[in-house]
Amino acid sequence: MGTIIEDARDGWIPHHLIAAAEREGLDPEALIQNIANGSAIVMAGEKRAVGIGRGFSAKVNVNIGTSTVRSDLATEVAKAAVAERYGADTLTDLSMGGDIREIRAAILSETELPLTTVPIYQAVVDCGGIDCLDADMIIDTLRRQAAEGVSSFVLHMTDKKTLEALRRSQRVLGVVSKGGSMTAGYMLHTGCKNPFLEYFDEVMEIARKHEIVISLGNTMRGGSIVDGGDAAAAVERKQNIDIADCCHEHGVQVIVEGCGGHVRIDRIPLCVRLYKDAAPYPLFVAGPLATDRAVGHDEIAGAIGASVAVSAGADYLCAITPAEHIGLPTEEEVRQGLIAFKIAAHIGDTVRFGSDEADATLSSCRAELDWKGQIEAAIDPDGLSARVPDAGPCSMCGDYCAIKIMREYLSRSD
Amino acid sequence: MGTIIEDARDGWIPHHLIAAAEREGLDPEALIQNIANGSAIVMAGEKRAVGIGRGFSAKVNVNIGTSTVRSDLATEVAKAAVAERYGADTLTDLSMGGDIREIRAAILSETELPLTTVPIYQAVVDCGGIDCLDADMIIDTLRRQAAEGVSSFVLHMTDKKTLEALRRSQRVLGVVSKGGSMTAGYMLHTGCKNPFLEYFDEVMEIARKHEIVISLGNTMRGGSIVDGGDAAAAVERKQNIDIADCCHEHGVQVIVEGCGGHVRIDRIPLCVRLYKDAAPYPLFVAGPLATDRAVGHDEIAGAIGASVAVSAGADYLCAITPAEHIGLPTEEEVRQGLIAFKIAAHIGDTVRFGSDEADATLSSCRAELDWKGQIEAAIDPDGLSARVPDAGPCSMCGDYCAIKIMREYLSRSD
Repeated sequence: MGTIIEDARDGWIPHHLIAAAEREGLDPEALIQNIANGSAIVMAGEKRAVGIGRGFSAKVNVNIGTSTVRSDLATEVAKAAVAERYGADTLTDLSMGGDIREIRAAILSETELPLTTVPIYQAVVDCGGIDCLDADMIIDTLRRQAAEGVSSFVLHMTDKKTLEALRRSQRVLGVVSKGGSMTAGYMLHTGCKNPFLEYFDEVMEIARKHEIVISLGNTMRGGSIVDGGDAAAAVERKQNIDIADCCHEHGVQVIVEGCGGHVRIDRIPLCVRLYKDAAPYPLFVAGPLATDRAVGHDEIAGAIGASVAVSAGADYLCAITPAEHIGLPTEEEVRQGLIAFKIAAHIGDTVRFGSDEADATLSSCRAELDWKGQIEAAIDPDGLSARVPDAGPCSMCGDYCAIKIMREYLSRSD
Repeated sequence: MGTIIEDARDGWIPHHLIAAAEREGLDPEALIQNIANGSAIVMAGEKRAVGIGRGFSAKVNVNIGTSTVRSDLATEVAKAAVAERYGADTLTDLSMGGDIREIRAAILSETELPLTTVPIYQAVVDCGGIDCLDADMIIDTLRRQAAEGVSSFVLHMTDKKTLEALRRSQRVLGVVSKGGSMTAGYMLHTGCKNPFLEYFDEVMEIARKHEIVISLGNTMRGGSIVDGGDAAAAVERKQNIDIADCCHEHGVQVIVEGCGGHVRIDRIPLCVRLYKDAAPYPLFVAGPLATDRAVGHDEIAGAIGASVAVSAGADYLCAITPAEHIGLPTEEEVRQGLIAFKIAAHIGDTVRFGSDEADATLSSCRAELDWKGQIEAAIDPDGLSARVPDAGPCSMCGDYCAIKIMREYLSRSD
């Protein structure tokens, strides 16, 4: 049996993927072509298929999961439910504390969203630390997670060349990718090759069997705007594109993480274009945060960077919450981060698609003081419906609504 | 006695303005030159002078004030205090409800920030509606407000040409500037000229006497991203630049409002450059909101647009709160809007000044898990200090801090 890519190369794709395209008004023939050439992927969970990449609106992922110091299953399931309710497209479970399998199973049973993991997290926990990791154990974790219903794996392809470039760099914050640092830690401790490269054929076999989307991790993203976009990042970009080509040739859907972390706002478009001009695969961006100084409000710094990134061509965003750099987010912080990133994704899409229609719809309702219509057209209808007046102008303008005044006096003088 | 501009033309400025420059590490000689050529202004209240424009960091204004349907003096004073505490540079009192003079006096006595008004608001209230306005009354309002300690007036210079351009436009939302619609309403109702143009000499005399900064209003800003940047906006931009030239020639400090309202993200840089390439005067931007669909979260849509606007050269931002388009903001919403815009101003300044130093300072502290240093370097130290751990890594990474892991394994393998 072929994979989705192989089906697409043969000119067809399964019906549920066609539905994902039609939901967004995308021509199924175009989707088949985009999947075949790697510029779009469909991440399919048991219950929902989400299209990412060329032709699709920008998508937003929400990270949830426990840590070694804070771990409660019910809290993480509640975050997953909030993310789904407020319009997340995908979830990533980063749990490292508690019963990781049980948490993942609960999330999969409680939501419809496709679920991503960073398998080395669980491998580190299961074997009791980075120093105890072995490659068999890591690959076995992929195999088990795939069988349990995970839709996508983040794998960090760090190799000796990227680590050498990192050693030569003058970074303030070094590496801020947890999965990347664990993968590199294993390599440095054992002297072994990157486990996902050493056992690449096994990884491909697992991905093909379970139609897992491979997400190539961004170990060399900058943790500070002064660190982003250095030689280490450039070496990793080239490396990830080469590996993405291999995944695609193996009939495995692939996305590449890049331009994430912290990037100065004026450097974001170049960073995105350097990738997009070199590779067809969807670009997955964490943030980027356009300043290091917004700590406590990083959903805003992230939404600013993400708007610019999507405008320049990024396809898929990882939402940042106000708790970033401080601690695990609460349910409410997950909601805040998600909404900020949904705003960013939409702003970027107005540029990617050159379309203002959805905005014009809302504004037409605003012109008529049609609050119900505004709620329907808003990015966060729930939040808005709790706030708006029943009818008439808002309490800011009261009797002096500019729109009404101007219309009245212009018509009087006609 | 000369005005600040006339002093600057003579090669000096008063001592308290020098202090405003030195606070930001700006060479006083450069400030004198920038004031003389109009590219910078200093807005001076009784207690504080704030520099805006070339050489200065981007500044953030906070709007407060009652409306005809919601009016409480204590609430507005509390908003002013919150704005000052969280780092607003200037305040604008837009009160139209309650005892406007008393509210303004209370704000002036409770905060140190320079205060701006839109005098036609009070004129409309004092004479009982737009239809009862007369030009003497409007100009007299300027005179009285100036004597009471206001530092800057927003005046809408709408004339027949801009109104003609508006009539020919196909806007979804027409005019969304309250002061602009009142000024136009008066003109259309009476058939008189724009009152600030008809009595321009009196306006200049008042401004000179009290060193009022004239802020030329942006009546033709778009209320929707599909409305922004049309012919009406272009006619107004040209008109405002011509009038700014006249103010400057009269020795009156002037700033121009433009590119505000709702503007699609990819059009913001062009909008800013069209103005900045044509005129030296500081550009004051309300928002701009990069989407109409973020209603309920417009501080985020506004911060996104504002970051791009400041990066392109805007000098001064008017913060947008989450209550925009819904109602008068609460104290907490004022704080949220302000912080979002302080983040935007800083992000833009990293581009305007090509400097990452403040960000690198925070990130150096982050690398050392120095929370106290991070708080000091953060844009919102208060908010951050309430959230951070006493010491050690945050609860997100717990035992698996990427920075620590990577350092440890790199050093082990040295």
